[in-house]
Amino acid sequence: MHIGILGAGQLGRMMAISGIPLGMRFTMYDRGADVPGAAVADIVTGAFDDLQRLRRFAQRVDLVTFDWENVPVASARAVAAIAPVRPSPRALAAGQDRVAEKRLFTRLGIPVAPWRPVEDRGDLARAIAALGVPGILKTRRLGYDGKGQARVRRATDADRAWQLVRGQPLVYERFVNFSREVSLVGARDRAGRTMFYPLAENLHVDGILAMTRAPCADARLQRGAESHLGRLMAALAYTGVLCVEFFVERGRLVANEMAPRVHNSGHWTIEGAETSQFENHLRAIAGLPLGSTRARGHSVMVNLIGRMPPRRSIAALPGVHLHDYGKSPRPGRKLGHLTYVGASRTVRDRLAIRLLRLAGAGTRSFRPMC
Amino acid sequence: MHIGILGAGQLGRMMAISGIPLGMRFTMYDRGADVPGAAVADIVTGAFDDLQRLRRFAQRVDLVTFDWENVPVASARAVAAIAPVRPSPRALAAGQDRVAEKRLFTRLGIPVAPWRPVEDRGDLARAIAALGVPGILKTRRLGYDGKGQARVRRATDADRAWQLVRGQPLVYERFVNFSREVSLVGARDRAGRTMFYPLAENLHVDGILAMTRAPCADARLQRGAESHLGRLMAALAYTGVLCVEFFVERGRLVANEMAPRVHNSGHWTIEGAETSQFENHLRAIAGLPLGSTRARGHSVMVNLIGRMPPRRSIAALPGVHLHDYGKSPRPGRKLGHLTYVGASRTVRDRLAIRLLRLAGAGTRSFRPMC
Repeated sequence: MHIGILGAGQLGRMMAISGIPLGMRFTMYDRGADVPGAAVADIVTGAFDDLQRLRRFAQRVDLVTFDWENVPVASARAVAAIAPVRPSPRALAAGQDRVAEKRLFTRLGIPVAPWRPVEDRGDLARAIAALGVPGILKTRRLGYDGKGQARVRRATDADRAWQLVRGQPLVYERFVNFSREVSLVGARDRAGRTMFYPLAENLHVDGILAMTRAPCADARLQRGAESHLGRLMAALAYTGVLCVEFFVERGRLVANEMAPRVHNSGHWTIEGAETSQFENHLRAIAGLPLGSTRARGHSVMVNLIGRMPPRRSIAALPGVHLHDYGKSPRPGRKLGHLTYVGASRTVRDRLAIRLLRLAGAGTRSFRPMC
Repeated sequence: MHIGILGAGQLGRMMAISGIPLGMRFTMYDRGADVPGAAVADIVTGAFDDLQRLRRFAQRVDLVTFDWENVPVASARAVAAIAPVRPSPRALAAGQDRVAEKRLFTRLGIPVAPWRPVEDRGDLARAIAALGVPGILKTRRLGYDGKGQARVRRATDADRAWQLVRGQPLVYERFVNFSREVSLVGARDRAGRTMFYPLAENLHVDGILAMTRAPCADARLQRGAESHLGRLMAALAYTGVLCVEFFVERGRLVANEMAPRVHNSGHWTIEGAETSQFENHLRAIAGLPLGSTRARGHSVMVNLIGRMPPRRSIAALPGVHLHDYGKSPRPGRKLGHLTYVGASRTVRDRLAIRLLRLAGAGTRSFRPMC
């Protein structure tokens, strides 16, 4: 089976690495040829709104999926006229606009933080007055890794925040005073059967995911998150892997955002689960039965951001696995990740601290997980 | 680091799949371009004795290793004049001639079955008279997967055996009345440090490896095999992964043959060990510290020979991993393998029987392992 991927970043690269042993081959579409996916796939270059090139790309493959969730929906629809696109352009659209996403969550009974759409400076003042501070002013579209966001700690921060992100549709969200951040990765096959990984707990530093630990052994949270994700997948007639990030506020799940694709907080599944999120995404879109999502131990995943530690230091840590995305270093850029699977939480957490240090992420926020 | 591999079969393919996440890139040399490695590497095509093309290939890479142990030693030497070749051409040569191999084993105190070189029909008669029957007449060079071998059950089989393999240097070996076949995969880094995987038990059907189970929990055999392999690696100043297959005859190890490369009986390590044989081979030749060889449970690996079972049947078995080599089916050809890692030997063996059936290998010879 010949899989096309829109986007050829690290997610596409890891998808191909897990799909090639299944007998699949890959062609990826991206703006340039010097991309992480190039090591494991043919690359077609073109703009993401060049419908003619996208159609030619679609003609080469059996079905198409995403490495990047911000592919224009019109482009996904043009591709879908030629080859099956999974998840569907409709599911893709649902995650591209924070307002549409929050409305969908609310309609499905998935709690979200209080929010207001913001079109102008007056909207922002009214939103702050109605919802209070602290809060976050976010662009409705194209935000990731903390980009397109401005904090509003006090009402007097409003002007600075406005200047930072103005000029596009925005949303003001009241800050959730969370005790933990968790995410649930699930897969839904073409027959509507679902499988969920154990909840993972995330640590963000400066808006970028620094560390994920799994499984988070809280049966009540797991049930709640699975119920939310299951309803969301059913509502979107979803095929593939879907991730929702949640805050935990006084023991209650509050949805932050969804990603209609494999997710950074699921990278631990490569070594840490019986079937990785990448393989399960491919199984789902290829019409195969899903694989076991059982955890193989206590996992930690630490992102390598901005610079790569010496390979020798990584290789010297027993049981630690490097995933180098083949990208050139740049501040704030995700260059790779490290994984470790331990026999207990204690052993895992001991390694987690070493990995955070090696990654230069600091360990101030480190504490036992759920 | 840019790794060159001589040969682009499934071993090279799996090596690249494990090395790309380490940030390595791969170029492979083989006779044709339609090879398993093509999914994950650039391919340079040429004959294995075309020294000019081989030299150009070597100029493109940082160091060179093998997917195929029968690369002519003169070719390996020509390449070594341009780029480091690991393991060395000398180590490669040691495994290419059964007589040289047996002499080396004997010199190092590694037991082998009684044997005699055979140049003509008279030699064969004298060898049978001296060593007895049953025995096996083998070509000294280029044998694999049971090819280039003829059984001599009774003295009257000698003529038929001679006709089957005559025309090249041969060796007659007395048949070892073994209770088990095991193999040890070990790695040696550039500083001479060694790591050994747990012994694996192999089941051959018609001369081809059908199934491997690991770990084989026999501490005495493990110690003995490690001692043999360690001496062999030291004698060859070896860098990389090396495998020796042994018979177990009345509780005693008898070496059958060595392979100066990753080995089919080590494929279980991809899911079943903390670091796979492929990653450890790459770590060794790249000058990185070796990774943990600890088993992650009780593994079985079943080869898919001649035909691929339906993908849906494979995917429906929880915890089973497919490794498709991307080859077109042909009787007797290794097309892929399946792996399963279980929590106990009982659970693993239950799956092993299902996998053998799925692979069409039959289960007549199945019994509890060491």
